[in-house]
Amino acid sequence: MNILEERILQDGILKDGNILIVDSFLNHQIDIKILEAMAGKVKDKFKEDKITKVLTIESSGIAIGTIVAQTLGVPLVFAKKNMARNLDDEIYETSVASYTYKNNYPVAVAKKLISKDDNVLIVDDFLAEGNACYGLIDIVNQAGANVAGISIAIEKGFQNGGRNLRADGYKLFSMAIIENFTDGQIIFR
Amino acid sequence: MNILEERILQDGILKDGNILIVDSFLNHQIDIKILEAMAGKVKDKFKEDKITKVLTIESSGIAIGTIVAQTLGVPLVFAKKNMARNLDDEIYETSVASYTYKNNYPVAVAKKLISKDDNVLIVDDFLAEGNACYGLIDIVNQAGANVAGISIAIEKGFQNGGRNLRADGYKLFSMAIIENFTDGQIIFR
Repeated sequence: MNILEERILQDGILKDGNILIVDSFLNHQIDIKILEAMAGKVKDKFKEDKITKVLTIESSGIAIGTIVAQTLGVPLVFAKKNMARNLDDEIYETSVASYTYKNNYPVAVAKKLISKDDNVLIVDDFLAEGNACYGLIDIVNQAGANVAGISIAIEKGFQNGGRNLRADGYKLFSMAIIENFTDGQIIFR
Repeated sequence: MNILEERILQDGILKDGNILIVDSFLNHQIDIKILEAMAGKVKDKFKEDKITKVLTIESSGIAIGTIVAQTLGVPLVFAKKNMARNLDDEIYETSVASYTYKNNYPVAVAKKLISKDDNVLIVDDFLAEGNACYGLIDIVNQAGANVAGISIAIEKGFQNGGRNLRADGYKLFSMAIIENFTDGQIIFR
């Protein structure tokens, strides 16, 4: 069991049987040491892949994206929600479905920040249905760049995102994969 | 001239004479080395202050908050906009006025994440009128904790935030202070 799995068992809170709250160490308060541990594993997994840029999505991907980018020695770009059109009209835009809020929201990246020569590692805190990931993949594709892989802190293995991304051939690394919640217990894959 | 000031002159874009765009290195794409340089200076400035926690506000403060927290060896907490009430009802909430959008928005922090024993360093990317800072100060005060100081990447010296915070006695460190924009040139203090 790795440091993230241990911390999920120690400080994660299960609400209503299937909502995992990790706001004391991952997405509201952030324990930097967990991000560093994950970034070290990401560096091992992608050391042959010549990553040129880390791409994430605001807000909860930014902290983990920052430490992964630092560890790989490349810049971080985060896709913005509700990007101010008047400040930068040259954008790649896509629409992401929110499983939690049952709606769609636009996310965008300034065109100048991803070039066709970029080899992009997508990073996020959670993977559930994969909607945010596929949105970021769409942006990378619009730029004509390459998706080198995807790194996730917590994958919900009982939802479809991980299965679909692997079936589509993406190199996906998840630091912790939750198989299911059984009788209020968290079972890892 | 420090690394941030040099980078502002090199890659910052002035729009309409008084809007500084730094999205290629500070708040859309992030150059981690600039954040590390700033975090090193923050550590020097606050080394006697026994900081226990870094507090910032989503989204653009998170990257810089992450590296400052890493350098100080403490956790990061970021205040959330539109915090989901049903997920965590025990929150400190305040209202922040947006100079850009001419409205007010609520920001919140879960009560469990700041205690009265905390010695908090507030971190953000920009300081203009100081509205976000005063909102974060309000949250720290609600928690009964202490504001040890405030660290900012870019202070707009021609707006009121820095002057007011210093007049109120806060220990404020700004990595770059822009005195004004003269004939399309950026003049640092």
